[in-house]
Amino acid sequence: MREIGEFGLIDRLASRLKQRVGSHPSGVVIGIGDDTAVLEYQPDQQIVATTDALVEGVHFRKDTITYHNVGYKAMAASISDVAAMGGRPQHGMITMAIPADIEVETLECIYDGIAEICNEYDCAVVGGDIVKTDGPLLINVALLGTVERGKALLRSTAQVGDIVFVTGTLGGSAAGLALRCQYKGTELEQSMRDYLIGCHERPTPQVTAGTLLAESGICTSCNDISDGLASELHEIAAASNVTITIIEKHIPIHDYVRQFASLTGSDPYSWALYGGEDYQLVGTVHKQHVGAIQSKFQEHQIPFVVIGEVTGFGNKVLMAKENETIELEKSGYNHFRT
Amino acid sequence: MREIGEFGLIDRLASRLKQRVGSHPSGVVIGIGDDTAVLEYQPDQQIVATTDALVEGVHFRKDTITYHNVGYKAMAASISDVAAMGGRPQHGMITMAIPADIEVETLECIYDGIAEICNEYDCAVVGGDIVKTDGPLLINVALLGTVERGKALLRSTAQVGDIVFVTGTLGGSAAGLALRCQYKGTELEQSMRDYLIGCHERPTPQVTAGTLLAESGICTSCNDISDGLASELHEIAAASNVTITIIEKHIPIHDYVRQFASLTGSDPYSWALYGGEDYQLVGTVHKQHVGAIQSKFQEHQIPFVVIGEVTGFGNKVLMAKENETIELEKSGYNHFRT
Repeated sequence: MREIGEFGLIDRLASRLKQRVGSHPSGVVIGIGDDTAVLEYQPDQQIVATTDALVEGVHFRKDTITYHNVGYKAMAASISDVAAMGGRPQHGMITMAIPADIEVETLECIYDGIAEICNEYDCAVVGGDIVKTDGPLLINVALLGTVERGKALLRSTAQVGDIVFVTGTLGGSAAGLALRCQYKGTELEQSMRDYLIGCHERPTPQVTAGTLLAESGICTSCNDISDGLASELHEIAAASNVTITIIEKHIPIHDYVRQFASLTGSDPYSWALYGGEDYQLVGTVHKQHVGAIQSKFQEHQIPFVVIGEVTGFGNKVLMAKENETIELEKSGYNHFRT
Repeated sequence: MREIGEFGLIDRLASRLKQRVGSHPSGVVIGIGDDTAVLEYQPDQQIVATTDALVEGVHFRKDTITYHNVGYKAMAASISDVAAMGGRPQHGMITMAIPADIEVETLECIYDGIAEICNEYDCAVVGGDIVKTDGPLLINVALLGTVERGKALLRSTAQVGDIVFVTGTLGGSAAGLALRCQYKGTELEQSMRDYLIGCHERPTPQVTAGTLLAESGICTSCNDISDGLASELHEIAAASNVTITIIEKHIPIHDYVRQFASLTGSDPYSWALYGGEDYQLVGTVHKQHVGAIQSKFQEHQIPFVVIGEVTGFGNKVLMAKENETIELEKSGYNHFRT
């Protein structure tokens, strides 16, 4: 590392991006290489801005994910935040704190993963910072996106009587992690293994779903599921001061996740509720518009699954099981409580 | 830390900002508390975007700076990048990676420093992320600012014949660090001590100077001095493919810095050239406009010191000393070479 220097390293990593992203992506007046990037947006757009960090040993480990996919997933988490607001991701800035003994090739792998997902979602890395650390590798993504003026999807506007939806199956990421860790010896057919690992390592942020919801004008609240369904519902319930009631058996769970749970004696609902990192969207829409939005989603072949309803005021999340209704705890994946 | 939880911690830190910054700063449609911030800019503005990280043990130590000033300086470094583009800082996002044993009060101190400088520069913290780490404390600031369309100051447009300027004295930050470290026993009068420590811990980003230069339309290149004068000049020389020649004795150095250097047998020019973190601006302007820009700076009581000239093509930085002209090495403060 020493011999290439900071500027040599930046050049090498930036070149991984250029190969794939092209040097003149949309809205980039000045990209990597000056004191700041210079960006341009359309006057009818508002900017959505988010930042998310992953730390080795806390959020990922070498044996649970490849470095390529660490880059992919770091960017996916931020893209998912933008999607949850109904926005389109545009411009990212990457900070990496790197231990002295890390190989340049490892950093290139991470950048290749970043470049891959940037290509898929038509966004560009426009800057960053690379610093030394005595601690573990850290990757921070600051991401800017755009949303049509006044159309951003908030958490705080859910209304009593709205239905609660999710945009796809849940629990896959937690199942994939379990397959990487405590159940790593489990023999599975390849397609199931690939699916579960894919859910964990290469989540799919729901940008199209988010923009459909924002354009529709009938989505009253939205979150992305980074910390588990229970935690996200609690955030909506708290911000909107409503009681949300979901029906356990309506939570969509992929067959592979059910099968793997059954094989390992695990509870797939626990993965869905508390596992997190599925990066589907959860939110609320006016009940009378459910049909319209469902057919819109169908056109785009995106699932729109009704899992419950906003049943009253107060800040509470309930779940109806077979024989009883329980209050759901918030505790998803929370770094400061576990 | 455990008992307050992540959300409790975010609330506590956000409240430090609200007390000082006010809850409705300019351009903030949605601030802290949703998946992303939602921001709005004027249609004639371009966005400048930068990100900078500080790591404990690498960029600062408990015995070289207070935690309050760590927050202040982390934000100052990013504001300075925006200033170097001729922009005004607007909206920041703070990522902190925090060790398990850190006190909430320490984080509050950092946030108080961030809030202080945000108030001074009329910018707002609109989001962030807090993650655990097994390593040292890390603070990353992603900052967005605005610049009038087409007016951003680049590195790549210096022209042969331009003069080279700086906006204030250099070497103070390195002197302050030396006073905190190797010369910490040195007896100094209080005003000198305060000045030197202030230079190191509480640098003053040159936003007004940057906006004056951008508005003037005659500034052909600009950088902020984060890595030392030599390194910044090299960046301009490389990006513009020019040879820059500065005159050593024209480099402005504060009397206190000279006196402290003399007391400790140090070279104040070495501090100015290679110390870094002075956060003054260095750049080039057309020679025929020097008078006009100088009086503009005088109106605002900002120094504008001519230290050299763009003397030819090629990628080189020269310095005229008393009896000889030497080639200046780039090596300022570069994490990967020291």
